[in-house]
Amino acid sequence: MNYRMICRVLGLILLIYAGLLLLPMIAGLVYGESVLNFLATIGISAALGLLLLIPKPRTGSLVARDGFVIVGLGWISISLLGALPFWFSGSIPSYIDALFETASGLSTTGATILTDIEAMPRGDMFWRMFTHWIGGMGVLVFLMAVMPMSGEHSMHIMRAEVPGPTVGKLVPRVRRTAMILYLIYIGLTLLETVLLLFGGMSFYEALLHAFSTAGTGGFSTNPASIGGFGSRYIETVICVFMFLFGVNFNLYFLILIGRWKEALKSEELHWYLGIIFSAVLLLSLGIRNLYGGFWQGVHQAFFNVGALLSTTGYGTVDFTVWPEYCKWILILLMFCGGCAGSTGGGIKLSRLMILGKSSVSELKKMIRPRSVTRVELDGKRVEAGTVQAARVFFTIYMGLLLFFSLLISLDGVDIATSFTAALSCLSNIGPGMTQAIGPAGGFAFFSWHSKLWMTLAMLLGRLEIYPILVLLSPRTWKK
Amino acid sequence: MNYRMICRVLGLILLIYAGLLLLPMIAGLVYGESVLNFLATIGISAALGLLLLIPKPRTGSLVARDGFVIVGLGWISISLLGALPFWFSGSIPSYIDALFETASGLSTTGATILTDIEAMPRGDMFWRMFTHWIGGMGVLVFLMAVMPMSGEHSMHIMRAEVPGPTVGKLVPRVRRTAMILYLIYIGLTLLETVLLLFGGMSFYEALLHAFSTAGTGGFSTNPASIGGFGSRYIETVICVFMFLFGVNFNLYFLILIGRWKEALKSEELHWYLGIIFSAVLLLSLGIRNLYGGFWQGVHQAFFNVGALLSTTGYGTVDFTVWPEYCKWILILLMFCGGCAGSTGGGIKLSRLMILGKSSVSELKKMIRPRSVTRVELDGKRVEAGTVQAARVFFTIYMGLLLFFSLLISLDGVDIATSFTAALSCLSNIGPGMTQAIGPAGGFAFFSWHSKLWMTLAMLLGRLEIYPILVLLSPRTWKK
Repeated sequence: MNYRMICRVLGLILLIYAGLLLLPMIAGLVYGESVLNFLATIGISAALGLLLLIPKPRTGSLVARDGFVIVGLGWISISLLGALPFWFSGSIPSYIDALFETASGLSTTGATILTDIEAMPRGDMFWRMFTHWIGGMGVLVFLMAVMPMSGEHSMHIMRAEVPGPTVGKLVPRVRRTAMILYLIYIGLTLLETVLLLFGGMSFYEALLHAFSTAGTGGFSTNPASIGGFGSRYIETVICVFMFLFGVNFNLYFLILIGRWKEALKSEELHWYLGIIFSAVLLLSLGIRNLYGGFWQGVHQAFFNVGALLSTTGYGTVDFTVWPEYCKWILILLMFCGGCAGSTGGGIKLSRLMILGKSSVSELKKMIRPRSVTRVELDGKRVEAGTVQAARVFFTIYMGLLLFFSLLISLDGVDIATSFTAALSCLSNIGPGMTQAIGPAGGFAFFSWHSKLWMTLAMLLGRLEIYPILVLLSPRTWKK
Repeated sequence: MNYRMICRVLGLILLIYAGLLLLPMIAGLVYGESVLNFLATIGISAALGLLLLIPKPRTGSLVARDGFVIVGLGWISISLLGALPFWFSGSIPSYIDALFETASGLSTTGATILTDIEAMPRGDMFWRMFTHWIGGMGVLVFLMAVMPMSGEHSMHIMRAEVPGPTVGKLVPRVRRTAMILYLIYIGLTLLETVLLLFGGMSFYEALLHAFSTAGTGGFSTNPASIGGFGSRYIETVICVFMFLFGVNFNLYFLILIGRWKEALKSEELHWYLGIIFSAVLLLSLGIRNLYGGFWQGVHQAFFNVGALLSTTGYGTVDFTVWPEYCKWILILLMFCGGCAGSTGGGIKLSRLMILGKSSVSELKKMIRPRSVTRVELDGKRVEAGTVQAARVFFTIYMGLLLFFSLLISLDGVDIATSFTAALSCLSNIGPGMTQAIGPAGGFAFFSWHSKLWMTLAMLLGRLEIYPILVLLSPRTWKK
């Protein structure tokens, strides 16, 4: 392993992180709050970052393993450091709670341990919502967008941080790819901010909710989440943007360079729209009498399908009172998650498509062993390695889900609560399917050990498992 | 497809089935009951069987697809026909209920829709418990044991009916393998019957419970299941036999021919014992104060680990009142199931071992791409095809589990009930993890459509999915 180069990249991450922490500090200053908590955290991050830059790498080459280690250690570091402002200011008195909240923010989960959201200072709240935005596209993708690094090697980092079964470079150079992704991300965030301003939100609220939507996070400044604003317009804007941020960003790039047709032909997009349509239809039938009128039901169905499929997890109404089959449809959406290359979590649609298609292909082979079957996506053959990787991912994902369910159940919560809490953390959603952890509940009541397990689950989910597993494997550290 | 040969084998199955139906008829006669229901069913089965024997096959050759079709159609036929005695006699007035009970019996699930078990005539009850015994080892394995068939072709049938990732022939000839398996099966059943007689059971009760244990079914003549006998001795005997029937029968064969050491070296056996030990330990800690004394807790832990890991599903106490983490441990056991080549259900231990080992091996490859990693079981390399088959199986299994959970939730039952009901049916266990469907509950309250879905799930689980999927695939029936 190239330890020196790993230190160097980690150092750069922490310096950038210190820079990003300036924004909430400015927000705090604007609102006349004490910003010592941010100053201290910036100091610590910058000092650590500079320390890590001391060893000069002999070579810039990185292998896949180094990429995993950088991403794993990077994300753990920014989670640990990002919790400090909340802890220093006392807005979250327990460090473990602060760590949970930060990991929930960075991983774009949006599960919260706060019980009195409005009591948080505005600078801290800015940071809380901004972690979603940082985590959504990834801090390493950001690093690659702003720092010159050799293309071949940084690809290993990109692969380890960007969700999905495969990572395509948009343009030959990784740096430009990262830059384009961030520009699209910034553009959509600003557009949402403006549209939310029209809905009567203050600039502060609009920007913070755009951060939260863009990262498919789910934190809100309002104790009743989006439902608390009582505005059909705001709900609709946010619903549309949740769907938009669940789409593969490559498609936006294709649209930007005028290749509309290619973008609209994407098989994953068709499935995405098909799932949205079917889920909304089935849910609308179930809740048509709950909200005074069929169209109100359709509106709520759309919003909550958006919230769970994109893995944002915003709330308007308490879906834990919906008919049981509606909850199961929502659970299935929680497994699914967004498209590959989006900011959404979950297993990812394209991975599920590969799993489904390859299972059908196996069945066909079983029926006619000599027939030629191949798995195709967008008209192109999916390599056997990609199919296998998707299967391995699914196996480990399900194993972890059951394992975390068991660990969380040590708190004495019922089967549905532990199961959907684990699923919600692993898929980076936010709420679960029972009242305690649903849109009207929260995660404050869990024990410190459950919170630590959930923190781990959220990071595992955001990084698609391997970077954390690679860190935990003794084999990684052997000479 | 060799339709004529498929008809021939199905005809033979139905003739054998008619023969097997003589036993409950004799039991009915002994107890002076009307046996018209059995006579009619025997007549119908025999007539259908003879009809199917009319087309003479031009060749005896069968391909894998034919094997799946025979097993799939065979099991659906015997489920449909086996329900008739209950329906004719009126002991189960609804045909769908009778079908559910029969499929639950044949698939060795043991979930029951009966609410007044003691009201059932003794002949019908004999049949109910005997279906477990028939289904445990498989009616086609029985057919192969008694009928001369060419070895190569009957192997396709054996593969489709015997559970586990691979099927080993014990001896070169399939017929002798089938015969040996049945002799071990009969031997263990008789041994258990005798031991239960010593515990004060009547011959009728002892034999019927031996049938039920041998098939890892779980039906009982007692409304309170095994706990209803109030005998520590009976519970212990049954517990031991549940563990025994969850072991790969190949090991008993090895022991019989004196190759003790080889049998005891089985890696799957070590894992089986390890899982039992760990689960009992963890459960004992959780329930140590529930049953008046630590050792009572250990006893209950052992019995219920046996009941769920072997997928028998007998009850002594209501584990739905156990601490939540204990329920999750039991749920994990329900996924696991018995060893390959046993009468137990579930995913099967050896398949999970292959999944676990191959996932670790993939992770190793990710860390060091050039290192040589191989998946081994019992010191032998597991072929890539077997690993892939295990992954595909797991993917489809999990997909079906979520799908059936959704379908069952249409009855309005809560998440934990629909989830564990689906798991219980798919893994052929019996009880679920909530009070309604736990050891003290039953499946009578479900709607007719849920019962049909569960019937399908039980058959899918017993036949390890593919025979039923092959039947449902249009590709199978194309020229």
